[in-house]
Amino acid sequence: MTAEKWSDDPKTDAGPIISSRVRLARNLRKYRFAPRLSPEAARAMIRDVAGAVRDAALPGGARLRMIDPRDLTESVRAALLEGHAVSPEFLSGGAYSPKALLLSDDESVGIMINEEDHIRMQAVTPGDDVDGAYAIADGVDDVIERGVEYAFEPDFGYLTACPTNAGTGMRASFMAHLPGLALTGQAANVLQSAAKFGITARGIYGEGTKPVGHIFQISNQVTTGKSEGAIIALLRNVTAEVTGREKAARKALFSGTNLADRIWRSYGILAYARRLGAEEAMEHLSDIRLGFEEGILNIARPKRPIYNLMINAQPGRVRARASGETTDAETDVSRAECLRSML
Amino acid sequence: MTAEKWSDDPKTDAGPIISSRVRLARNLRKYRFAPRLSPEAARAMIRDVAGAVRDAALPGGARLRMIDPRDLTESVRAALLEGHAVSPEFLSGGAYSPKALLLSDDESVGIMINEEDHIRMQAVTPGDDVDGAYAIADGVDDVIERGVEYAFEPDFGYLTACPTNAGTGMRASFMAHLPGLALTGQAANVLQSAAKFGITARGIYGEGTKPVGHIFQISNQVTTGKSEGAIIALLRNVTAEVTGREKAARKALFSGTNLADRIWRSYGILAYARRLGAEEAMEHLSDIRLGFEEGILNIARPKRPIYNLMINAQPGRVRARASGETTDAETDVSRAECLRSML
Repeated sequence: MTAEKWSDDPKTDAGPIISSRVRLARNLRKYRFAPRLSPEAARAMIRDVAGAVRDAALPGGARLRMIDPRDLTESVRAALLEGHAVSPEFLSGGAYSPKALLLSDDESVGIMINEEDHIRMQAVTPGDDVDGAYAIADGVDDVIERGVEYAFEPDFGYLTACPTNAGTGMRASFMAHLPGLALTGQAANVLQSAAKFGITARGIYGEGTKPVGHIFQISNQVTTGKSEGAIIALLRNVTAEVTGREKAARKALFSGTNLADRIWRSYGILAYARRLGAEEAMEHLSDIRLGFEEGILNIARPKRPIYNLMINAQPGRVRARASGETTDAETDVSRAECLRSML
Repeated sequence: MTAEKWSDDPKTDAGPIISSRVRLARNLRKYRFAPRLSPEAARAMIRDVAGAVRDAALPGGARLRMIDPRDLTESVRAALLEGHAVSPEFLSGGAYSPKALLLSDDESVGIMINEEDHIRMQAVTPGDDVDGAYAIADGVDDVIERGVEYAFEPDFGYLTACPTNAGTGMRASFMAHLPGLALTGQAANVLQSAAKFGITARGIYGEGTKPVGHIFQISNQVTTGKSEGAIIALLRNVTAEVTGREKAARKALFSGTNLADRIWRSYGILAYARRLGAEEAMEHLSDIRLGFEEGILNIARPKRPIYNLMINAQPGRVRARASGETTDAETDVSRAECLRSML
């Protein structure tokens, strides 16, 4: 674990929005879609994409490392997944093989090659900055397009293996910490009404997962029929509404002293526990993130952003730091140790 | 709350035995027993007893203050009760009236006058020192006996209002912290076998009360047919057996890391909670007392002994520190505040 990931940026702690992300799906015209691509052709396709970015100047001076997922240890795979650098589908192997990953050192720019589409590139920015993320993703897209020909039809836009991604091929999202809505029981309602606008919300680790740590991914569901700019504007509006309700919910919560007590206890437990499960750790980290943001915890902040602690509390990261195989109980001990040392 | 009570002595933290206590019941020959004593006669009896100790040199240079329980505020009454300086019966008023209390500044020596017996004197020593407590109580007894004539029959010993106290009129006890036995579910068994020897164990706040904080009073049940020395020797033997089992139970508990985690979490909660109920506070204080004693909490001890914190966490003490009437919720806030500042 080096200390220079995008998740180390204190902007991730500045408000309910932890980070912004833009993901673009692209395919190369001269190859079949991934489901029907032979291993030989996949290798050639990977070379084409890698060649397009190899010597190019990327936005923000990003340098991409080429990674073969088959070379990764189990704990590094889990750590990449927990850090949202890759999708579970990318690591699950199986159908589309071989694959490759181009990843910047701070993990803010990543290109998965031969996932469901030939190219899934993403750019992440810390805090509330979806425009910044789009600018980076768009820049990377331009670079690649200089070296390869995309599958693109004027009537449809970009073609994708699954039609639900066609058109812009774009998924823009915010990672939002919404303890106020969650603790007042309003989260489901508020997020369901977002669905009316084609905006969906799900737990931090993908569809169908529980929103651990009260963290939600809010993203556009629909990729066609609107320009990239219009989709981002809609996402931004809906998210502003959601975070406005989050703030109102917090105000209501703080009218008692119970929440302050809960937050301080969470701090005490994180600072002293000798064993912490991942889920419990996330609960407490959610509490203290809220506490620092709302000024309840009027003490020095940890050196790293809380979101970074959350990532580092995930099982894969904890195991990656421990040497050798560890049992669940040992992982809980390491997690507690790590969080204590970071607080 | 001044900082010079017997419960401030670090000896209370030295092992499972928090304190030792000897209580002697005595009656004056020339007055009827308390249940049949007129208020006028009670006043005269109180004067006789007070006169006997007024100018006398007491063991350890103790100086006794005369207190009329009717003058006490509710919170001071509760605080005396919680500190074991008086019995609930003494404060409940009712039948035997008037009453008086002679109490040393450190609360280690007390004489309740006109409780169930004319005189209930007690001496408390911090730690495992029942001989010391007996020496003090015996010395106070000698002083009083120089000024009054006790109801004493060579065949029975000292006469008391209730025959179960006659003979020696002595109740010797240890206050023992037994988290090992309690957490391994052995407490009831071990203490029941003590009963076979005429030794009883009950919760910290008297008969029938739950053993909050895993603190038990272990005392002789039988007051007649044995000398004071023999009763104390028996109590000491049974208690040595109990604390031996306590130590074995702790060893078993500490073989996992769960207990260490529990202890550290308790420390974290005490150090940071903004609201603490009395019962929860006692649980956590019990944990950290065990933790310091067993070297798990390898950090600086609080300035005051844990037992003293326990006493100060009781509702009456908390209210006594707060100014004016307080709600239960406010008391919980004050309790948390007080414990934080003491840790």
